[in-house]
Amino acid sequence: MKLTFSPASPFARKVRIAAIETGLIDKIELTPAAVAPAQPNEEYSKITPLKKLPVLILDNGEVLLDSYVIVEYLDELAGGGKLIPTSGAERWRVKSDHSLTQGMLDSMLLCRYEGMVRPEPLRWKGWSDDHWNRAWAGMARFESKPEVLAAPFNIAQIGLVCVLGYADFRFADCGWRKAFPKLDAFYQKMMERPSVKVSVPPPA
Amino acid sequence: MKLTFSPASPFARKVRIAAIETGLIDKIELTPAAVAPAQPNEEYSKITPLKKLPVLILDNGEVLLDSYVIVEYLDELAGGGKLIPTSGAERWRVKSDHSLTQGMLDSMLLCRYEGMVRPEPLRWKGWSDDHWNRAWAGMARFESKPEVLAAPFNIAQIGLVCVLGYADFRFADCGWRKAFPKLDAFYQKMMERPSVKVSVPPPA
Repeated sequence: MKLTFSPASPFARKVRIAAIETGLIDKIELTPAAVAPAQPNEEYSKITPLKKLPVLILDNGEVLLDSYVIVEYLDELAGGGKLIPTSGAERWRVKSDHSLTQGMLDSMLLCRYEGMVRPEPLRWKGWSDDHWNRAWAGMARFESKPEVLAAPFNIAQIGLVCVLGYADFRFADCGWRKAFPKLDAFYQKMMERPSVKVSVPPPA
Repeated sequence: MKLTFSPASPFARKVRIAAIETGLIDKIELTPAAVAPAQPNEEYSKITPLKKLPVLILDNGEVLLDSYVIVEYLDELAGGGKLIPTSGAERWRVKSDHSLTQGMLDSMLLCRYEGMVRPEPLRWKGWSDDHWNRAWAGMARFESKPEVLAAPFNIAQIGLVCVLGYADFRFADCGWRKAFPKLDAFYQKMMERPSVKVSVPPPA
């Protein structure tokens, strides 16, 4: 299998962590791809019309997206229940918490594009403030849920790792560690896992 | 259960269709909510930090997001396998095709915000062109996959219905019906389903 990949993509990081944790990383070739807003990449758009990272290209040529579905697929390949509980209320809590991290990442990328990619005279503070508030309020939500941070390793925690790592990477001065000491402790603990440590984004 | 809802939201439409098709609509109270970029809604942000529609509020107060996880939840409540195949390659194809429709909707909403919500002097054509191209290329992808359009009713088709309905609603002049005659026939056929017909967005 091939995974389209960039070390800067928090969504690609999520799948990489999941692939390591499920023991499948050796079956996956990381294939570099570069995408950016307002920049065509016709070659890559043929693979996925969304022009987003990552997608998983199966050996039969089928293309699987998005990052969450790829993680579900890897989890099933590995026997199931490794990163996503298979039943009960905990299953839905973990899936919903993961969706929250997904939306936080979407908002953080929109802030990144607004503040660093869009031509400066066209920036709208109301837009980036709104999206930053969503990400920040999401962090506050997780700070108030110690049971989520202490649960057995799962996809919601991976999502949260990718959120916090992306905050370090692109918004280094945002102050999340001071504002959210429980998330800080959580991230430090997660960084003891080789999958999390090896996938930290490169210096910005 | 309560579902936060707006008749203009394609993501809320997706869940409404799924709730009707799984026979669960009578157990769900549609609760109006209004959200817009750059406009705070503190009450709603307490429910979901992402300030997005829809979320499902369970009877015990737990909040489930996003629209896809809610559909999975309803599908399981209804016995499983109603809208998402439970196993095999078809399961992953349907989930991946649904993710494609999800990304298309995300891009279409970004186009809507860029072209009709963002202050006019701050608009960036490169951004909206890029996102429109993603949605359009997604439509072209489905036009070339008649097996997806003809499959037993599933969540990917619901997602595609919501894409096409949103195109009618917000981009009435885009010409998708002429460009993609198979999608046109698909949408007409889908409109025979009461769930699809009742959930068409109101006139813009």
